[in-house]
Amino acid sequence: MIFEIVKSAGIAHKSYFIGSKGAAAVIDPRRDCDIYLKLAEKNNLKIEHIFETHRNEDYTIGSLELSEIVGAEIHHSNKLNFAYGTPAKNGDKSKIGSLILEVFETPGHTDDSISIKLKDIEVSKDIYMVFTGDTLFTGEVGRCDLYGEEEIPKMAKNLYESIFQKILPLGDEVIVCPAHGSGSVCGADIREQEFTTVGYEKKTNSMLKKSRKDFVEYKINEKLYTPPYFRKMENNNVKGPKLLCKLPYLKPLSMDEVKWFLENDAQIVDVRNPTDFAGGHIPGTLNIWREGLPAFAGWFLNYEQPIIVVENKNNFMDEINRFLIRLGYDNIYGHLSGGFPVWFKGAGAVETLRTWSVHDLKKKLEEEPKDESLFLLDVRKEKDWIEGHIEGSHNVYVGLLKDHLEEVPRNKHVVVYCDAGYKASIAASLLKMNGYENATNVLGSMKAWKKAGYPVTKN
Amino acid sequence: MIFEIVKSAGIAHKSYFIGSKGAAAVIDPRRDCDIYLKLAEKNNLKIEHIFETHRNEDYTIGSLELSEIVGAEIHHSNKLNFAYGTPAKNGDKSKIGSLILEVFETPGHTDDSISIKLKDIEVSKDIYMVFTGDTLFTGEVGRCDLYGEEEIPKMAKNLYESIFQKILPLGDEVIVCPAHGSGSVCGADIREQEFTTVGYEKKTNSMLKKSRKDFVEYKINEKLYTPPYFRKMENNNVKGPKLLCKLPYLKPLSMDEVKWFLENDAQIVDVRNPTDFAGGHIPGTLNIWREGLPAFAGWFLNYEQPIIVVENKNNFMDEINRFLIRLGYDNIYGHLSGGFPVWFKGAGAVETLRTWSVHDLKKKLEEEPKDESLFLLDVRKEKDWIEGHIEGSHNVYVGLLKDHLEEVPRNKHVVVYCDAGYKASIAASLLKMNGYENATNVLGSMKAWKKAGYPVTKN
Amino acid sequence: MIFEIVKSAGIAHKSYFIGSKGAAAVIDPRRDCDIYLKLAEKNNLKIEHIFETHRNEDYTIGSLELSEIVGAEIHHSNKLNFAYGTPAKNGDKSKIGSLILEVFETPGHTDDSISIKLKDIEVSKDIYMVFTGDTLFTGEVGRCDLYGEEEIPKMAKNLYESIFQKILPLGDEVIVCPAHGSGSVCGADIREQEFTTVGYEKKTNSMLKKSRKDFVEYKINEKLYTPPYFRKMENNNVKGPKLLCKLPYLKPLSMDEVKWFLENDAQIVDVRNPTDFAGGHIPGTLNIWREGLPAFAGWFLNYEQPIIVVENKNNFMDEINRFLIRLGYDNIYGHLSGGFPVWFKGAGAVETLRTWSVHDLKKKLEEEPKDESLFLLDVRKEKDWIEGHIEGSHNVYVGLLKDHLEEVPRNKHVVVYCDAGYKASIAASLLKMNGYENATNVLGSMKAWKKAGYPVTKN
Amino acid sequence: MIFEIVKSAGIAHKSYFIGSKGAAAVIDPRRDCDIYLKLAEKNNLKIEHIFETHRNEDYTIGSLELSEIVGAEIHHSNKLNFAYGTPAKNGDKSKIGSLILEVFETPGHTDDSISIKLKDIEVSKDIYMVFTGDTLFTGEVGRCDLYGEEEIPKMAKNLYESIFQKILPLGDEVIVCPAHGSGSVCGADIREQEFTTVGYEKKTNSMLKKSRKDFVEYKINEKLYTPPYFRKMENNNVKGPKLLCKLPYLKPLSMDEVKWFLENDAQIVDVRNPTDFAGGHIPGTLNIWREGLPAFAGWFLNYEQPIIVVENKNNFMDEINRFLIRLGYDNIYGHLSGGFPVWFKGAGAVETLRTWSVHDLKKKLEEEPKDESLFLLDVRKEKDWIEGHIEGSHNVYVGLLKDHLEEVPRNKHVVVYCDAGYKASIAASLLKMNGYENATNVLGSMKAWKKAGYPVTKN
Repeated sequence: MIFEIVKSAGIAHKSYFIGSKGAAAVIDPRRDCDIYLKLAEKNNLKIEHIFETHRNEDYTIGSLELSEIVGAEIHHSNKLNFAYGTPAKNGDKSKIGSLILEVFETPGHTDDSISIKLKDIEVSKDIYMVFTGDTLFTGEVGRCDLYGEEEIPKMAKNLYESIFQKILPLGDEVIVCPAHGSGSVCGADIREQEFTTVGYEKKTNSMLKKSRKDFVEYKINEKLYTPPYFRKMENNNVKGPKLLCKLPYLKPLSMDEVKWFLENDAQIVDVRNPTDFAGGHIPGTLNIWREGLPAFAGWFLNYEQPIIVVENKNNFMDEINRFLIRLGYDNIYGHLSGGFPVWFKGAGAVETLRTWSVHDLKKKLEEEPKDESLFLLDVRKEKDWIEGHIEGSHNVYVGLLKDHLEEVPRNKHVVVYCDAGYKASIAASLLKMNGYENATNVLGSMKAWKKAGYPVTKN
Repeated sequence: MIFEIVKSAGIAHKSYFIGSKGAAAVIDPRRDCDIYLKLAEKNNLKIEHIFETHRNEDYTIGSLELSEIVGAEIHHSNKLNFAYGTPAKNGDKSKIGSLILEVFETPGHTDDSISIKLKDIEVSKDIYMVFTGDTLFTGEVGRCDLYGEEEIPKMAKNLYESIFQKILPLGDEVIVCPAHGSGSVCGADIREQEFTTVGYEKKTNSMLKKSRKDFVEYKINEKLYTPPYFRKMENNNVKGPKLLCKLPYLKPLSMDEVKWFLENDAQIVDVRNPTDFAGGHIPGTLNIWREGLPAFAGWFLNYEQPIIVVENKNNFMDEINRFLIRLGYDNIYGHLSGGFPVWFKGAGAVETLRTWSVHDLKKKLEEEPKDESLFLLDVRKEKDWIEGHIEGSHNVYVGLLKDHLEEVPRNKHVVVYCDAGYKASIAASLLKMNGYENATNVLGSMKAWKKAGYPVTKN
Repeated sequence: MIFEIVKSAGIAHKSYFIGSKGAAAVIDPRRDCDIYLKLAEKNNLKIEHIFETHRNEDYTIGSLELSEIVGAEIHHSNKLNFAYGTPAKNGDKSKIGSLILEVFETPGHTDDSISIKLKDIEVSKDIYMVFTGDTLFTGEVGRCDLYGEEEIPKMAKNLYESIFQKILPLGDEVIVCPAHGSGSVCGADIREQEFTTVGYEKKTNSMLKKSRKDFVEYKINEKLYTPPYFRKMENNNVKGPKLLCKLPYLKPLSMDEVKWFLENDAQIVDVRNPTDFAGGHIPGTLNIWREGLPAFAGWFLNYEQPIIVVENKNNFMDEINRFLIRLGYDNIYGHLSGGFPVWFKGAGAVETLRTWSVHDLKKKLEEEPKDESLFLLDVRKEKDWIEGHIEGSHNVYVGLLKDHLEEVPRNKHVVVYCDAGYKASIAASLLKMNGYENATNVLGSMKAWKKAGYPVTKN
Repeated sequence: MIFEIVKSAGIAHKSYFIGSKGAAAVIDPRRDCDIYLKLAEKNNLKIEHIFETHRNEDYTIGSLELSEIVGAEIHHSNKLNFAYGTPAKNGDKSKIGSLILEVFETPGHTDDSISIKLKDIEVSKDIYMVFTGDTLFTGEVGRCDLYGEEEIPKMAKNLYESIFQKILPLGDEVIVCPAHGSGSVCGADIREQEFTTVGYEKKTNSMLKKSRKDFVEYKINEKLYTPPYFRKMENNNVKGPKLLCKLPYLKPLSMDEVKWFLENDAQIVDVRNPTDFAGGHIPGTLNIWREGLPAFAGWFLNYEQPIIVVENKNNFMDEINRFLIRLGYDNIYGHLSGGFPVWFKGAGAVETLRTWSVHDLKKKLEEEPKDESLFLLDVRKEKDWIEGHIEGSHNVYVGLLKDHLEEVPRNKHVVVYCDAGYKASIAASLLKMNGYENATNVLGSMKAWKKAGYPVTKN
C-alpha cells in the first residue's frame, strides 16, 4: 500500500494519496493537482477514485481538474447537490487494488460530511485507517458554525453522534487521517501531530471527554472567525470550479504598468516579509508575507479586481501563484518584474514602516506609561487576547480590522503587535492604506515578549 | 547589453534574447516561451519587440504566444501576408535601451526573409552584430528549394545578392548570428560553431568564394530533403499557431488503454534508445529515440491521430512534450504510465530487434561474402552514402523509407545501418511495422565502422 | 510536532526525523545526511539528538556524519562497544521541545536493539508513538539469525519477550514506527504499510498470535538470506564509518580508461534496465539495474577493487553514488563518460542477451516439452519457488548463484526467470561473465506468467 | 565545436569551456568546478587541457581542483613559478579534437599573462577566436598597477606591445574572448558586451586609438581600487589553493550560538537586501547583500575569524557558499538556522536603519539647505563622484571607508548614498558597527536621483 500525505501550506490542508497494485485514490485533492499525477507515475498507479469528504470552504476543490486528466470517478455525499461527480451514501465501497474504501456519513461540520474507512483485505478484514475529513482532527473536532449561529445546536448534536457513534467505535488501533492539521481555521485548536489513532484521541482529545450536553454547549459558545472568501469557495466547489489546465502565466509588469494599476484600483499585494516591507515599500500596498497568503489573502482580496504581486526578486512566483489559485483567485494578473528594487531604483515613491523590538516597546511603556498618544493594538484572535496580552492593548482581529477601523484612533501612534510580527505588518499596512500616518510593527510580538520574560496580563 | 542564445535541441534552432537598460527583444522565439520570460525576469527586462526573420518551416513560431503574455510588438516581413504582427520593411528601426535593431530585407531562402543589424549607440555607431536568420549560416548559406525546383534559380540569385550585396559589406568585424546551427535541415552543411563573423565567413565559407554563376549552379544541383511536416509549419506560422496555454495535460494511460489505442490506429512512438528498444518493445510501434524526435518525428507522425509516447520511466516527459509541441503536434495525447516495464510485467506481447556490433557485421560479410539472403540497407542521406559506404549496401534515406519499401526485399534479412545506430533503429522498427520479419540494427554503424578501420567504398 | 519519514529506496530503510519547538531528533539516520539538514532548516529546528536503534547490518550508519555537522548527541545501546556516541540504557530520556523520547531495551534481533517511546507532554502523559527499530515491523518481526544458527533459540526468546512484554503492553492506540518497510532483508515478509499501531498488529500480525514456543520454533525454522556485505556494515557501524565529506568526486572515464579497468579486474556494473542491457552491453560486465543496487550490490561487489558504473546517459549518477555510499562502497571510482552509447559508437566489443516474453517461453515449453538442451533457472527466493514455480525449473537464489554455478549446466541454453525479469538479468549477466554462452532472460517473469494465466506448479 | 561561457556573477569572471570530437579544454576555471564536469558529461567530452591566462588576483583558481578529478594538464606561463602545472611559452600548441590552441605571451597586466589563439583546422587555417585573459577586454584593456605604482610605466608599455603587436594583427574578423565582463575590478570600465571582435575593438575601444605615449600616460594616471583580498588570491593561486573536494557543509547555528560568535569576534555578515536589513537586523553586523558578496566581501572579511551568514530564509546558502569559496574564504563556518526571523522571534536585540527615498533627500536638502547636522556621504568610486554627484556630498569609496572614518563626523546625521542604495547599506552598517548612531541609506541613490531629474553637480 502506497500512502502519501499532500499538505498545502498555510491552510494546513491535507489530502491523501493511497494506492495498491496499480490503482490509486485521492482524498480531497487540491486544485493544482500535478502532484498527484507525479505520485501516480512514480508508483506506477492509475488514479481511479477521488473522494471529497465534504464541499470544503477554505480552498478550491481539485476533483474536477484531476478527473479531467485521469478519468477517475469523483465521490461526494448525496446530501448536497453537486453539479458533477457521483453521489455517495452510507456503505458505498470502492476497491483500489487490495484496499476497500467504504463511505460512511458523518454530518456535523456540514450536512454532506462523509468519512471513509479503509481496509487492506490482503492483510485482514480489520479497519486500518479512517479518513475523517473535517469531522475529527488531532486534538479537536470540526467547527459547527458554518450554517449560521442558529444551526449550531443541531450541527453540534450531529457532530457528536458522528464521532461517538460512528468513528470512536471503529477501534482504538485505527489510524485517523483528518483533512486539516494545526493552523487551519476549520477547527479551533488542531494539534500539531501528523497522525493520530482513535485510542489516542480518546485519551487526549478534551472534546471527546465531554458529555453530549457539554459538547453541544461548548460548540455553541465557541467563537471562530470565518474569512469572507469561504462563501465563494463553497459556491465554486458545489458548482465545479473553473478548470486550470495549467497554472496561468502571470504577466511581468513594468514599474509604469504597476503604477497604472495602483491608480486604477487594482489589488497590489506586497508579499515580502515584514522587515523588508518596513525598510521600504510602495505607498498604498497591502503587506501579506508570502507564506501568509493561504491563510490571510481570503480576508482582504476580492475576486473582481486584478491582483498584482510585489516580491523581492520574484524567485517564488510559482508558489505564490499556487497559493492564490487554491483560493480561487483566478483574477491574479501579474507581478512587478524585477521586484521592489526596480521601484526604488526607478525613483518611485517609497514609504517605510517603523519597527520596534519588544525591548523598544517595553522601554517605551516603562518610560512613558501614561503616554496618551500611543495606542497599542493587538490583532491576534480574541481568544488569545483573553488568555493573555500586553497591558493596555486593544484587541481587533487582523481579519476584521478593515471593518472596525473606528476602534482605532487616527491621531495616535498605533503600535501593532500580534503573535510574531507578521499579522501585525498586515494590520499596519492596512492602517496606512486607510490614512493612518503613524504606525509601528512590533517584531517578534507576543512570542518575543514572552521569551523576554515581560509581563502578560489577563482581563 | 544582455545577449543569450536559446537553442532548441534536435532542430538546431537558435533564438536570440537581447536586452539593454530595462528593455528586451527576442528574435525567432520558439513556441514554449517560458525561457524568455525567465531571462527577462532574471535580467529585469521588459520584452518589447519580437522579430521573425522569416515564416520558418521547421518549427512552430512562438511570437504570438510570447506576445500574448508580455504584450510585445511582433515584426515580420511585409512580403508575406501574416495574420498577425506588424509588417516590416527595409530600414525599419526598433530601440531596445541603447540598442538599435534595423531590419533589412535578405530574400533568397524565402521571399520574406529579413536580417537585422544591431548597433549599440552608447558604444559607437558601428554595427556590432547581424542576425541573418536562414540567409547566412556558419560555413553555409540557406536552402533555396522550398518553393519548388523551378524557383531555385530565382531564389538562388536573390540569396546571392542578399549575402554579397547586403551582409558581407557590413564589415569583417561584425558578429554573425544565424537562426540555425549544425544539424539543421535548413542548410546543407552548417558548421558546428556557435558564432562567426563576416570576415571569418569570407575566409572560410566555401559558398562565399563562388562566383554568382557558380553559386546559383551549385544551389540548383543541391539535393536536400524536405520533411513533410514543413508544409504544416508554414501554414501554422502564417496564420498564427494555436496558443499553448490552452493545450491539455498529457494523460497517463494504463496498459489496457494503450492496447486500445494501438488497435485503433493511434501513433505509438517508443522514444527509448535503440538498445532498450532492441531488448524488448511493443509490437507495431515506431522507435524514435528521445533526442531524435525534433529532427525525425516530422517525417513519420501525422497531425490527426493521437500520439502516445512509450518511455522507460517517464522521467523526460516534459522534454518530449516540448519537442513535439514545437513541431505543432497538438495531437500529442498521453503516455504509457509506468513506461515499458509495465507492459512486460503485464504480460503484454513483446518483440525484440536484433542488434549487431560492427564487428559482427564485418565477420558476417567476410565469412559469407556471397550470402544472398542478407540485404544491407544504408539509411543515411544520399550524399553521405555517395561519399563512402559499406560495400554492397543499398541506400534509402530514413525519412523516405516508408515510401520506398519496394526497394527493400521482404524475404531477406535486412541489416540496417546509419551514422551511429539511431536512425537505423527508426528504419528497422518501420520495417517491422510493415511486416518485415527479419531486421537487424548495426550499433555504432558508420561511426564505429570507420573507427574500427573497416573498409569504406565509394561508388 | 514535526514528523517526517526519510526512506532509503531499495533497502526499504526508514529513518525518522522528529521535531518540536526548535529542537529535533533523528532516529537511524542514513549516511548521506543532507536530507536531515534540509528538514531541520525548513522547519527551523536544531538537531540535538540522534538515536541508533541498533548497530544495523544492511547500511552504513549516518550518525557520525550528521553529528559532525550539527553537533548532536548520538545514543545507542550500552550492550555493544561502539567507538563513538553515548551508551544508552533502559529508561534514559531525552527531551526535544515538548517531546520526551525514552529508550527501552528490546533485544532479540541483536543484543543491542533498543526501542524508543515518544510522548508529547504538552498533549498528555500517554505514549504517542514507539520506534521499534528491527524488533517489530508491520506484519512481521525482526530476524534472529544474525549471530549464527546456534544462537537463534536464545535470540528468538529475547525477541518474544521484547515484543510481548515490552511493546504490546504500550497500548493498542500507540503508533508503531519500524526501521524497515516492505522489501527489506531485515524481516522475512514485512507488509507494505507505512505505519501501524500496536492494536492493528495484535489483530493482523501472524507472529503475534503464536505462543512463545511456536514463535521460537518458527524463528528456528525460518530461512533467510544474508548478503555478504552485512559483516562489513556491522564493523563499519561499530567502529564509526569514514566521513563522507572527505570522499572524492566520481571520475568521468573515457572508453579507453574503462577498457583498461576492465582488463585490470575492476568491478564494472552496468546499471541500465534489463531491456537496455539485453540490446547491447560491454562483455564481461554485471547488470544490476539502478533501483536494484541497494538490495543487490551487496551480494556481488567487493570493497577492494574500484567500482566503475556504466549508465545510459548518466542522468542518475547522484542517486547511484548515494545507493553505493550507503552500503559503504567507498571504492566507487568513476563512470563511463557519455554512457554506453559512447562504447558502441567507439567500436567497442558489444554482446547482447536474448530476452523472451512469457509467451515465448510458454510456446517453447509446449512445443518442445522434452527439449533437454533447455535449462530453466528460477533465481527467486527458495521460499517463493516452493510456493509456486514454472514446471521443470531449478531454483538457485540470485544472491547465491555465483557460489552454486555447478548446479547450472554449461552446455545448455539457460533460460532464467525471477519475479519480473530484473534479478534474472543479474543472473544471466553473471552466467555470461562466467563463460556461459547461451542464456535468456524472461521479461516479466513470474509476474507476467501468472498474469497470463499460465500454470504454476508446487513441489 | 562546443563553446560555453561560464560566468561567475559579481566578479564578472568568465571562464570558457571548449570542446571538439570527444576532447575539451577549460580556460580559467573557477574553484567550484562541478559546472565543467556537467558540461563535459552533457557533450560527452573528456577535459584534457586547462589553461590559466595568468595567476589571477580576484578569485581562487580552479585548475588544481578540476585536474584532480579529470586528470587534465594545466598550462600557465613559465614567467611565474607556479607550484603545479606545466609552464607554457610562446608557440606552445595543444590539440582538442580538430581545434588547435596556441599560447602566445601578452605581458602587461601581469608578467605571466598569456593569450590563446584558437583555430579549427577542420574548417581552415585561419584564426577563429582569441582568449585574451586580462589583456584586452570589450572596450577596455587590463589594469597595469598590480605591481605597484612605480612599475606602471613598464607594465603599460608591455601591455601596449602585447595588444598592438600581437592581438590586433590577428585580423578584424577574429572573435575576442576576455576573462572578465562589465563590473570586474580587473579593468576600469569594461563594456557590457558578451563578445567582441578585433575589428570592432579597433573601431570602438578608445584605448586602442591612443598613441603609445598617450596609452602609457593614461595608464599612469588611472586610479583603480585594489581590494585587500587580491594579495591572498595571488598567493593561493601560485602555491595552489586547498582542494575543495566538495563544497564544505555550513553548520546550521542556533540563535544562542550566533550570539556567542558575535561576542567572540566572529564575522557576522547579513546578506539580506538593504530594505530587509533596514527593517531590522542584529546590532553589530555588516550588511553585504547576497549578490554583492563576490565584489565586496573581499574588502571587509578576513581569512582568520569564522564567517557566519545571516540570511532571511536560507534559500540561497549554496550560492553564498560558492561566492565565498571562490574568494578563498575557507573560514566560512555556518549560518543562523531559520534566518533573521528566528532572531526577532527569540527576543534578540534588534536595530533598524533609516531609509530615505531620493524624494525624501531632495525635500530635506531643499527645506533645510543649511542644516549643518546632516553629513551627505557618497561612497561610490572617486571617478564617479568627479563625473557628477549631489551637491554638498563628501566622497569616500565604500571599500576604503573603514580606513577613513576620520573623514566622517560622529556627531552628525550621516546620509549615505551610492549608485542604487546597496553599497550605501554596506557603508551605513559599517558606520553603525563603528559607533555612529545616526545613519540613513538613500534607496535608489544616484540612479533614482537622476531618474527623478534632480540636479547633479560636478566639482
